[in-house]
Amino acid sequence: MYTYEYLFDFTKQVFKKMGCNDQDATVTARVFLAAELRGLASHGMIRIKDYFQLWESKRINSKPDIRIVHESPSTAVVDGDGAIGMVAATRSMEIAIEKADKCGSGWVSTRGSNHFGIAGYYAMMALKHDMIGMSMTNANPLVAPTFSVSRFLGTNPIAVAIPTGNQPPFVADFATTPIARGKLAVAEKKGEKTLTGYVQDKNGNPSDDPSILKEGGSMLPLGGDYEHGSHKGYCLGSIVDIFSAVLSGANFGPFVPPSVAYLPVLDKKVGEGTGHFFGAMRIDAFQPASEFKAKMDKWISTFREAKSAPGKPAVKIPGDIEREKEEIILKEGISIIPAIAEDMKEIADKLNIMFEVTDP
Amino acid sequence: MYTYEYLFDFTKQVFKKMGCNDQDATVTARVFLAAELRGLASHGMIRIKDYFQLWESKRINSKPDIRIVHESPSTAVVDGDGAIGMVAATRSMEIAIEKADKCGSGWVSTRGSNHFGIAGYYAMMALKHDMIGMSMTNANPLVAPTFSVSRFLGTNPIAVAIPTGNQPPFVADFATTPIARGKLAVAEKKGEKTLTGYVQDKNGNPSDDPSILKEGGSMLPLGGDYEHGSHKGYCLGSIVDIFSAVLSGANFGPFVPPSVAYLPVLDKKVGEGTGHFFGAMRIDAFQPASEFKAKMDKWISTFREAKSAPGKPAVKIPGDIEREKEEIILKEGISIIPAIAEDMKEIADKLNIMFEVTDP
Repeated sequence: MYTYEYLFDFTKQVFKKMGCNDQDATVTARVFLAAELRGLASHGMIRIKDYFQLWESKRINSKPDIRIVHESPSTAVVDGDGAIGMVAATRSMEIAIEKADKCGSGWVSTRGSNHFGIAGYYAMMALKHDMIGMSMTNANPLVAPTFSVSRFLGTNPIAVAIPTGNQPPFVADFATTPIARGKLAVAEKKGEKTLTGYVQDKNGNPSDDPSILKEGGSMLPLGGDYEHGSHKGYCLGSIVDIFSAVLSGANFGPFVPPSVAYLPVLDKKVGEGTGHFFGAMRIDAFQPASEFKAKMDKWISTFREAKSAPGKPAVKIPGDIEREKEEIILKEGISIIPAIAEDMKEIADKLNIMFEVTDP
Repeated sequence: MYTYEYLFDFTKQVFKKMGCNDQDATVTARVFLAAELRGLASHGMIRIKDYFQLWESKRINSKPDIRIVHESPSTAVVDGDGAIGMVAATRSMEIAIEKADKCGSGWVSTRGSNHFGIAGYYAMMALKHDMIGMSMTNANPLVAPTFSVSRFLGTNPIAVAIPTGNQPPFVADFATTPIARGKLAVAEKKGEKTLTGYVQDKNGNPSDDPSILKEGGSMLPLGGDYEHGSHKGYCLGSIVDIFSAVLSGANFGPFVPPSVAYLPVLDKKVGEGTGHFFGAMRIDAFQPASEFKAKMDKWISTFREAKSAPGKPAVKIPGDIEREKEEIILKEGISIIPAIAEDMKEIADKLNIMFEVTDP
């Protein structure tokens, strides 16, 4: 078990050693640790090795010149200059918030970035400004459009954070696929089959094999099959891809670059790096924030009173599960599985910093 | 079979007789007929009777004072004053487009409205301005949140229209449920069972009975069950509800008023009428429109080349199916089933206008 502070300081040191300035290393460490606290370990410490190896192979820029390349009062395109995703994303969301502060809303499409961790982090940056925050990103192609076997879309997540009064904030953060890629990886490591409806084989047949992606298989969009609305999941993933990459000039669809160094750089590119999209809407550009927040409290208390089906748990409000995990993990500490702790130690040794491997 | 012009003129006359001015009757008829042309007859002529009966029972205002009640340079709340949904929605989308023209993007949340027909129509209004258009609405509660049996959300559709160059525009328009309510109604009328994954009974058990909604059953969110991501469909429906109703001051969730006169007005209200949300983003607030449109053409041609699974049709781009139907229906005419034609005749007689019942 590790404390938040220990892993935060370690992560910050890793990124400083990779050449980040103090501020960039800080925001990067914050996003990694937010994933751990929110129970989304698949986007936490386990990924540091990927970033480190991308940096080692000079596929990530730790001293980027992140800048606005085109803008209007409420919009901007940001060029991330090959930055660590967290650094480009944090700066982009700050710009969206600044624009919302001035003219009611702000919308930023970002190119030349990399994997940015959990989408929810950036959406939640808006909350303390009494703004609704939105965040989305394209990602490595693993998902086939409806009727297809071509891996053309990422799991392209969408996050929306909405301020509240006495209730905890509404925070939705979800992949546009039935499950996240990380859950397949867990089943694969355990040697377990999955339910059907998550993946298909290379011929488009239903599969329960979580390792099928290694044999030409693909993930299915949210909805699963056409009869159950997979074309809607495909629409959502496409919208995320277009807002993130076509609007910014990043690589879209099948051209999104790999977020791991062990996969080669693609031969063909249609833009710069990975793309993200961010939005902020100031509540009092629609109505007094206090009134809105009282109504959101009422919305949440109404939905909490929805009747559960027999044997089912209470109805959750988006954000509940992650917040409950955060409370527990902050108290009990962060557990890192031995293989990941060994990875951290190896990185620490290479960078000449300290990392202590403890019992998980 | 009817021509577009015949049904357009008839519909316009109906709404003029109900008290609409020429402009409001025109936009209303346009949206009804757009649904027929796009093959979405469930939102076309079949619904005119509902609007007529709401007007007869004084639950819809044909002479509304639609006005902005709160605004910033890029945002507004519009009060529809009980208007026909099409009228309030068209005006709201125009405001979003005007704001986008001035400051890059425009976002309008609308209260005091009614059922607005097909969401895609308003999103598509942005296309000729070289803007991305978005449109969403809450609706009569039929959908249960994940784990619940309470009908707390509508089928809450989302539409996004994106300009292109040589390719036809990208137009996504989808309910946040596996299928639209109308498809259940069709199966029910034919006495057919449906697939499971669309509805559940009053205890939350899977059901294939399309009439289960009359026995306390509910529709499921996109994803179907929790294991296949129904919480993501629930998130989407909730976001639509909050953007449309909490942000505007309309009725949210279970309090959305019925869109048919045969269901009584609800005892409790938490706002004014039904709520919608509209957005417009000017392409050249992000990059030159010509560059963007060339890239969208490339996006679309890339996705058209996705490999189909054996025995499956070619991969569709959002908007393809509706556009193909529109081409055929414009050529061949609009077929109205006899029961609906009789309804039209009955309304025509009451309003002292002409309607000819022809063979379908």
